[in-house]
Amino acid sequence: MNPESLAWNERLIGVEGGIGRLDTPALVLDLDAFEHNLRAMVAIARAHGVKLRPHAKTHKSVAVAKAQLQAGEVIGFCCAKLGEAEALAAGGIDSLLLTAPVFVASKLERLVALHARVRELAVVVDDPLQVEALSATFAAAGRRLTVLLDVDVGSHRFGVTSVGEGLALARRIAAEPALEFGGIQGYAGSIQHIPDYHARAAAAAPVAALLAELRDALRAEGLPCPVITGAGTGTHEIDARAGVFTDLQVGSYAFMDVDYLDCTLTADGSARFRPALEVWTRVLSRHHKGFATTDAGIKCFATDGPLPRVVAGAPEASTYRMFGDQFGRLILPERASAPPLGSIVRCLVPHCDPTINLWDHMVCRRGETVEAIWAIEGRGAVA
Amino acid sequence: MNPESLAWNERLIGVEGGIGRLDTPALVLDLDAFEHNLRAMVAIARAHGVKLRPHAKTHKSVAVAKAQLQAGEVIGFCCAKLGEAEALAAGGIDSLLLTAPVFVASKLERLVALHARVRELAVVVDDPLQVEALSATFAAAGRRLTVLLDVDVGSHRFGVTSVGEGLALARRIAAEPALEFGGIQGYAGSIQHIPDYHARAAAAAPVAALLAELRDALRAEGLPCPVITGAGTGTHEIDARAGVFTDLQVGSYAFMDVDYLDCTLTADGSARFRPALEVWTRVLSRHHKGFATTDAGIKCFATDGPLPRVVAGAPEASTYRMFGDQFGRLILPERASAPPLGSIVRCLVPHCDPTINLWDHMVCRRGETVEAIWAIEGRGAVA
Repeated sequence: MNPESLAWNERLIGVEGGIGRLDTPALVLDLDAFEHNLRAMVAIARAHGVKLRPHAKTHKSVAVAKAQLQAGEVIGFCCAKLGEAEALAAGGIDSLLLTAPVFVASKLERLVALHARVRELAVVVDDPLQVEALSATFAAAGRRLTVLLDVDVGSHRFGVTSVGEGLALARRIAAEPALEFGGIQGYAGSIQHIPDYHARAAAAAPVAALLAELRDALRAEGLPCPVITGAGTGTHEIDARAGVFTDLQVGSYAFMDVDYLDCTLTADGSARFRPALEVWTRVLSRHHKGFATTDAGIKCFATDGPLPRVVAGAPEASTYRMFGDQFGRLILPERASAPPLGSIVRCLVPHCDPTINLWDHMVCRRGETVEAIWAIEGRGAVA
Repeated sequence: MNPESLAWNERLIGVEGGIGRLDTPALVLDLDAFEHNLRAMVAIARAHGVKLRPHAKTHKSVAVAKAQLQAGEVIGFCCAKLGEAEALAAGGIDSLLLTAPVFVASKLERLVALHARVRELAVVVDDPLQVEALSATFAAAGRRLTVLLDVDVGSHRFGVTSVGEGLALARRIAAEPALEFGGIQGYAGSIQHIPDYHARAAAAAPVAALLAELRDALRAEGLPCPVITGAGTGTHEIDARAGVFTDLQVGSYAFMDVDYLDCTLTADGSARFRPALEVWTRVLSRHHKGFATTDAGIKCFATDGPLPRVVAGAPEASTYRMFGDQFGRLILPERASAPPLGSIVRCLVPHCDPTINLWDHMVCRRGETVEAIWAIEGRGAVA
């Protein structure tokens, strides 16, 4: 937490042009771009008759979830961890899907408590032991939990690995009075970032085919799938068109990042989503030719993917590297001089999910004015 | 924040063997190893007549700082960011050095407020503009701030780059009635992780020589240096022996990490410090030969350096990779089978500082019992 920095930035809310006085480093959301992105995804969902179940692992924020709800076509939210779901539920979000198995003893009591607090809660499973743990817990609590079958569609991270295994596990779920079989999840995480749209579409086709095959096999056994959930920002258009998914688990589209900027996300090659999320940093030192030291480093940016991209406040073609845990290195093109000490440099976030998870708040701007500061309540809710 | 997970783990405090029921993932500190590390560093300081000014950028925790104070030889704490210093001051830590320049308008008011709250506060500078900003602010507030001269000893991140520039800036500081010239800082961040002790010592020698030259030049101008501060865990023994530093800014020694395990930290090659900090994760899925999916990924481990190292709970020679933002991939040696679903796997943290910055709490164990849970108050205090 950074309460004194937050207090300073809160004083800027509503002050025209106040963003220039921002205490830095800060995570800054461009509301115009963000709202454009929400509308663009809603339009795709409407055009293809699918619903949205945005993945809150990306933002972990009640305010963002509420904006997504308000934009339309949202039937609920995904969470990767129980703690994320608890954070959203505490803020009034009442339809939640846990997209990874939750079955360890330390979490079952919490899962029941969460179930009592929300309108809809569903959990995925990929192993009979998980079904047993959930069934015993919810039977003892006198409650009924919706359970989805997780299908491995190529990432090999979670999920049953064949239609036969899926059928067997679905029967196990359906046989438990305390559980309701809710459908299937197939999230192809490993193909979301294939840069070329058509190569990505080719990789996504067998995913939809496998899910359709399993759906039909389940239906033939009298186990209909009211929910077939999956997809991400990378395959959102492909999966919306596929006619198999009932809802899309999209996350990054709301913010975008350097990672996704290198991917063509639409069949016609147009840019559907705008980069909306930046880290604003200031120049702290400039003693050397060719670079300057800024106030945002490894603790401000995800370091698992590309580097941050400089978009304003520095000479064109400037680049950015980490300069240790706390500082950044603004690398200047030849013959360019460094921006003045104390001036703001704006960087697109490299990979949005783990970058957001470093911050407790995001500063929301409308042009040059701070409109709001949103809490990231689920930050660090990894358990 | 992860309040429900925290509440579960708090219920384990004092329960014999309770660590086995830990809600995961969790950051776990082995208190025996941690206390050993504190004592080992105190012994080095005493042997060579230097003091310790532990760097709180590593831990950002009041409880850790208090343990360091209690262990001895600590004259104060370093902070890389103003927000870290505010977090420590709120917990009663009253001697603080800000090891990077603080001079931007949004921070000056906070700096004055912090100055009023602690017994000792010092800030480093490397530019006349910073001196002007601090002087004007503290003069207006009717206060006197201790200012140290930051010297570039090879990282090129901050610091004056020559003895001449250092002399000129020190004169500027000394000429301001609202500022007190406190001495010099020379932190050789770029050499701390040179694996070989003697290669590291060779790189550290010119650092100490430069600081001694500047110290003597300042003294000749009637500007004594009561403080010559620098060093890190990598050069702690080398810099303690050098006879130039008055105090050592050590951080990682308290915890250790995979990064430092690959460095020989002592002249005689012995392992002075013990790995004390781990992330405990559980197995969530095991559908494939050769690996299993665990509950700790990019949001639980720093990804700027080496990978986490598996130390318990999995077959010998197992390794660990990220399996996306939320999950880990425990890679098993040939023919080994995966640990059971739900079982705990223990991993040494890869790079301690940015790993700790992902967590709001650390679970402190004594053997198999949870002894305490310490808050990381300054987590995310990057501004």
